[in-house]
Amino acid sequence: MATATGKAIFLKDYPAGMPEPSLFEERDIETPSPGAGEMLCRTVWMSVDPYMRGRMRPDIKSYIPAFSLDAPLEGGAVSQVVESNIDGFSPGDYVVDFTGGWKEYYLSKGERTQKVDPNLAPLSSYLGVLGMPGMTAWAGVTQIMKPKEGETMFVSGAAGAVGSVVCQLGKAKGARVIGSAGSKAKCEWLENEAGIDVALNYKDYKNAAELTKALAEAAPNGVDCYFENVGGMHLEAALNCIGFGGRIALCGMISQYNNQKPEPGPPNLVNLIGRGVMARGFIVSEYIDKAMEFAAEVAPLLMQGKIKFQESVYEGLNKAPEAFIGLFKGENFGKAVIRVGPDNL
Amino acid sequence: MATATGKAIFLKDYPAGMPEPSLFEERDIETPSPGAGEMLCRTVWMSVDPYMRGRMRPDIKSYIPAFSLDAPLEGGAVSQVVESNIDGFSPGDYVVDFTGGWKEYYLSKGERTQKVDPNLAPLSSYLGVLGMPGMTAWAGVTQIMKPKEGETMFVSGAAGAVGSVVCQLGKAKGARVIGSAGSKAKCEWLENEAGIDVALNYKDYKNAAELTKALAEAAPNGVDCYFENVGGMHLEAALNCIGFGGRIALCGMISQYNNQKPEPGPPNLVNLIGRGVMARGFIVSEYIDKAMEFAAEVAPLLMQGKIKFQESVYEGLNKAPEAFIGLFKGENFGKAVIRVGPDNL
Repeated sequence: MATATGKAIFLKDYPAGMPEPSLFEERDIETPSPGAGEMLCRTVWMSVDPYMRGRMRPDIKSYIPAFSLDAPLEGGAVSQVVESNIDGFSPGDYVVDFTGGWKEYYLSKGERTQKVDPNLAPLSSYLGVLGMPGMTAWAGVTQIMKPKEGETMFVSGAAGAVGSVVCQLGKAKGARVIGSAGSKAKCEWLENEAGIDVALNYKDYKNAAELTKALAEAAPNGVDCYFENVGGMHLEAALNCIGFGGRIALCGMISQYNNQKPEPGPPNLVNLIGRGVMARGFIVSEYIDKAMEFAAEVAPLLMQGKIKFQESVYEGLNKAPEAFIGLFKGENFGKAVIRVGPDNL
Repeated sequence: MATATGKAIFLKDYPAGMPEPSLFEERDIETPSPGAGEMLCRTVWMSVDPYMRGRMRPDIKSYIPAFSLDAPLEGGAVSQVVESNIDGFSPGDYVVDFTGGWKEYYLSKGERTQKVDPNLAPLSSYLGVLGMPGMTAWAGVTQIMKPKEGETMFVSGAAGAVGSVVCQLGKAKGARVIGSAGSKAKCEWLENEAGIDVALNYKDYKNAAELTKALAEAAPNGVDCYFENVGGMHLEAALNCIGFGGRIALCGMISQYNNQKPEPGPPNLVNLIGRGVMARGFIVSEYIDKAMEFAAEVAPLLMQGKIKFQESVYEGLNKAPEAFIGLFKGENFGKAVIRVGPDNL
């Protein structure tokens, strides 16, 4: 095979505030034939995730570099190997990696790349419950919050790719689980399908005081574990209700990511002190050495139907910007995935 | 002996904002002769500590109940046993407990009471470096921040009773230590006597941005451990400079304790996430089972002169309100202690 021609999405400029679709541009790129130690991959499914917004801020020091404006965007993807010069990867294999996103074809050196089995679970689930979001949820639950049977867990962004797995792992561990989400449909799914105890539609609450009241009613014994996806009034309400010895897994603060001016933090951080609370910010890559442990715990729960998941499926690479922007508008229900190409050519 | 008559200090009303001296009132009280299982104690030294401000807020749920307006205030004290009906405590013994403060005489059941040796260290040091503040410092360093040799530690309230011990334990463990304090004299003591690497006079910095700049210069490799005594711009600056895998011991936020309206938190909490930082609020009583370990580590360092301490000594029970209010005005240098009575009658 010679070069592969395909589409890829570039960022034309870094967004200020909420990203606009016009900042993204689809271009044709030529991907050369793979050299020694390389393989050519074709993206089947790609992921959009909130952390990508952080990579659009070159001013902020973070664990991962900002996106370049001179190369296609990148992100998690499930791809099929087209041509391989790497031992262990053959044409037709499916792989998941962190570069295949936002493009149709790319060269890979096989780094941070896992082969996945299309017969074990739907391919797209390797971007969700069996992928980075699921691993993130598992790490927050098992490595940070460590809920004990009968404890109360509060999860913000509960219907999202990460939050929905956190909720169900919490239930599997015997916790009382309260989740917040942004629509009636999401709350119904959480209570009726995911099986959590109470789902709060945060749009029903105007401010932290109102959300605190609702959370306190749902958590009469206080909150032992809080999984933070949202920030803002969610964090403030959680800190109002947190109990002695509480544990907080800080995973994201999506309500803050598009602020042009940083928003002040909650006024009740002092509760962390008087209540002896541990708050741990984390990124999933810290726990990468536990990936097998994650898979061994979550895959069986998925097979047994004890973990359910929702996907918002977008058809076509050109829908990726819309799917991404939708993350910050609460428009996706469960994991947002984009079908870039067919399973098989 | 019959009843003992002595003075005690009452709170007439709960303060709003900075406490005023007029809220405190000294009254004569009668302390009855001790019954079975009781002893009569005479306070020699009493302590004032920032956490007491929290006990003046009956509206806040905390780990310790609010002070009653119908009983003398209470707090840590070193006292001498006058008359005892408790095995193991004899007249003339010195004890440290959490009730002897703010009064001349009191009955004790011997609960949460430790005998102390006046020949081992000055009696007042059992309220400071060898007492609750020293134990707090030790817990924050050894149980939460766990500095490694060559790491950088930042300590706010560095010249205070807790902070000064944190600084010197950090040095003993091989960390680079940066402290902030509120006067030139305190900074000189920190650098020249306590031996820390850099002392920042926070009054030289108008806001978090300025303090951040100074801290970043003093910590060119970033801050690995932050010991929080102050809150506000100190927390914001620390979060700007914290490094990947940083650990924060949240001990106090003294700049916030007299706010009549809670002040917003720092706008950069999201750094906790991207940098994988653990922040642990704590109260010293959580670690009370490690008191022997604390004493075994800190007492020798004190004897060897590797931990130095400062005291602000107030003479007479009636000075206690002034000493207490001074805590929030930065008026004390090191541990604030009040001499309530002579070592021996």
